[in-house]
Amino acid sequence: AIDGDRLNEDIALTSRFGATAGGGIRRLALSAEDQAVRDWLAAQGDALGCRYTIDTMGSQFLRLEGRDPKLPPLMMGSHLDTQPTGGRYDGIYGVLAGLAVLRAFWASGYVPRHSIELVNWTNEEGARFAPAMTASGVFSRVFTLEQAYSLVDRDGVRLGDALQAIGYKGEEPCGAYPLAAYFELHIEQGPVLENEGKTIGVVTGVQGMRWFDVTLTGQEAHAGTTPMELRHDALLAAARLMVLAADVAAAHGPDAKTTIGIIEASPGSRNVVPGKVCMTLDLRHPDDAVIDRMEADFRIQAAEIAARAGIELSVKESWSSPSVPFDPACIAMVRDAAAKLRLGYGDIISGAGHDAAYMARICPTTMIFIPCRDGLSHNEAEYATPDDIVAGANVLMRALMTADEH
Amino acid sequence: AIDGDRLNEDIALTSRFGATAGGGIRRLALSAEDQAVRDWLAAQGDALGCRYTIDTMGSQFLRLEGRDPKLPPLMMGSHLDTQPTGGRYDGIYGVLAGLAVLRAFWASGYVPRHSIELVNWTNEEGARFAPAMTASGVFSRVFTLEQAYSLVDRDGVRLGDALQAIGYKGEEPCGAYPLAAYFELHIEQGPVLENEGKTIGVVTGVQGMRWFDVTLTGQEAHAGTTPMELRHDALLAAARLMVLAADVAAAHGPDAKTTIGIIEASPGSRNVVPGKVCMTLDLRHPDDAVIDRMEADFRIQAAEIAARAGIELSVKESWSSPSVPFDPACIAMVRDAAAKLRLGYGDIISGAGHDAAYMARICPTTMIFIPCRDGLSHNEAEYATPDDIVAGANVLMRALMTADEH
Ligand SMILES: NC(=O)NCCC(=O)O
Ligand SMILES: NC(=O)NCCC(=O)O
Repeated sequence: AIDGDRLNEDIALTSRFGATAGGGIRRLALSAEDQAVRDWLAAQGDALGCRYTIDTMGSQFLRLEGRDPKLPPLMMGSHLDTQPTGGRYDGIYGVLAGLAVLRAFWASGYVPRHSIELVNWTNEEGARFAPAMTASGVFSRVFTLEQAYSLVDRDGVRLGDALQAIGYKGEEPCGAYPLAAYFELHIEQGPVLENEGKTIGVVTGVQGMRWFDVTLTGQEAHAGTTPMELRHDALLAAARLMVLAADVAAAHGPDAKTTIGIIEASPGSRNVVPGKVCMTLDLRHPDDAVIDRMEADFRIQAAEIAARAGIELSVKESWSSPSVPFDPACIAMVRDAAAKLRLGYGDIISGAGHDAAYMARICPTTMIFIPCRDGLSHNEAEYATPDDIVAGANVLMRALMTADEH
Repeated sequence: AIDGDRLNEDIALTSRFGATAGGGIRRLALSAEDQAVRDWLAAQGDALGCRYTIDTMGSQFLRLEGRDPKLPPLMMGSHLDTQPTGGRYDGIYGVLAGLAVLRAFWASGYVPRHSIELVNWTNEEGARFAPAMTASGVFSRVFTLEQAYSLVDRDGVRLGDALQAIGYKGEEPCGAYPLAAYFELHIEQGPVLENEGKTIGVVTGVQGMRWFDVTLTGQEAHAGTTPMELRHDALLAAARLMVLAADVAAAHGPDAKTTIGIIEASPGSRNVVPGKVCMTLDLRHPDDAVIDRMEADFRIQAAEIAARAGIELSVKESWSSPSVPFDPACIAMVRDAAAKLRLGYGDIISGAGHDAAYMARICPTTMIFIPCRDGLSHNEAEYATPDDIVAGANVLMRALMTADEH
């Protein structure tokens, strides 16, 4: 079994890398804080005699050799990067629980048939560089290495240069080998398990998500002299589009979600009618056909709003990740593990994107969720109980051992 | 008469200090560009043998001594700072036309009874440091010097330190002496004169204006997992307040104006429901009682919107400038000057705030407007014709000469 105390200690320990005053973590991908936590992880692998590699996307791999060198490895992991004001569990839990599994194997002397790899994926959050799940996207051939390297953050820094700057542009080719399966353990990040009183979410898939860059161009004008009806106020039109986005979600049922997370209005002066607004739009639904309809509804009505205000509108898709069904055999292994451990469990679809969504394209994949308090995530107050933390890690280890026998 | 060609050349010349690619000017108060144009203005005064002083607020004064040293000076002027993407005329025209008047007196050997002072006021726009009209506000005892020095820009730089940094913290006490009258020449910055086909606006006053800092505090949450009805989305609530502000303007007739010029949403990540928004609000109307009602309407409905969304709302007044009636005698001098020069003219109320609004508190004051193309201002495309430029300057000179005889 897992050393639960050490796992919970590791969560407290890693929360110091980028700790915020609000009790959360600010550890944007490839920042100095990210570099520090990566160095820490590498040192843990050394102690277990793991083979340690860094690939060209900067992802870290800790490998415990298996009995049968002809078998493809089993992989588990998640990510150590966070949102600007993120919590202590999102991604981190999956990496540290994987480390706990490696330690449990090592301590017991148990050598599995397959080699077991723990991965820390680069830039999962999509907060510093969009899109999200970048390294697993390259690993699974969704993006090319060149596409990923040329992503820029809001200061214009290229991802490739940021990798170099913290010394994490590795030599290992990204994604060149087959895998037996991929398991990712994560907090749910939503309210379902908590509401249903369950400890384990058996994740059957990931909903579809689509990102857009929305640009509105009007005309800068004087706030004191320009009559309301002569204005082409890019920010007022953007406000109407934000309300529209919420209405579009409401029109497509309780599973539809729309979010504007970033907005920038220029020139940014109190007494100037804004001439230009750039904002993001995130559309989600478990059913890709519904996302298509949400997008169409938004586009049609947004165009009408913009035309009425004399505003030039551009709505550009910047990323799309269709809904993903996970592997039935892997799902069954998780369900069995939860049942054998006598934990309350239930099926769930992930509302968040995860590296597992991309890994599912190249190997049998699934995820394991545990509840988080008030369904809160992407928030400094993110919290999961120590007991659930341990329970999830034990399900991960047991599912992996089952997979090892196949 | 004014040397019209030289005046129009000066407008072209000064537009180089902070010229933007879009044909406008970015010359924020107390920036390096502001320093450069100030140095240029000081050198012009030298050539005319003017007494040159800088006061403790950094305003520049060029003084031509009059015949009768016992009479208080007559003052004219405006400002050389601009919006982030401002035009070539707003404020600048009033300063350069004043310089043309000084040159005309000098060239003709005419010595007026009163000393004539030209002023370039510090931080009129309110773009870098809010509120606007800061130096004339201190001059006229609306603000204390300490209040003005401790204003901070968005990078946290204090106005007092910014003055020091460009070498424009002068020795002269700010506003310690009486004035016979103050005349300010400006582009209208709105569409009225152009629509009415008039060359000169006889400005009878300035409308009321009130600035607010609006803060909305909700809860950061995950964009993919948080059901819409569980969100406390500070940006969506802000969007509803922006639409409300436009509705409030519409409900109070064609003279009512509401503007949100600055918005900042945090944490600023595509897949995080924004937990906090700060934005500005600018309310204007010629009748202060209507502004009171606009504010009350906004506050009541905004509180309802925020409460429904579970958002904490704060609406703080940061500045208020009540409507200002100008001096009837000065107004008459402008009207007579326009008539004598056979220019089309009409009465107008200023929609923009001006240093004259504060000067009216301490001496007989009025303004002169000329049309600007499409009523556009606070825009790089701001434009006034060379003929109107010259016409306005001649009205300024003639009104000043009339005032000198009283
Ligand atoms: N797990 C997680 O929060 N990933 C970020 C990608 C997204 O769902 O927006
Ligand atoms: N003249 C001018 O644009 N002043 C700025 C103050 C304001 O009206 O907002």
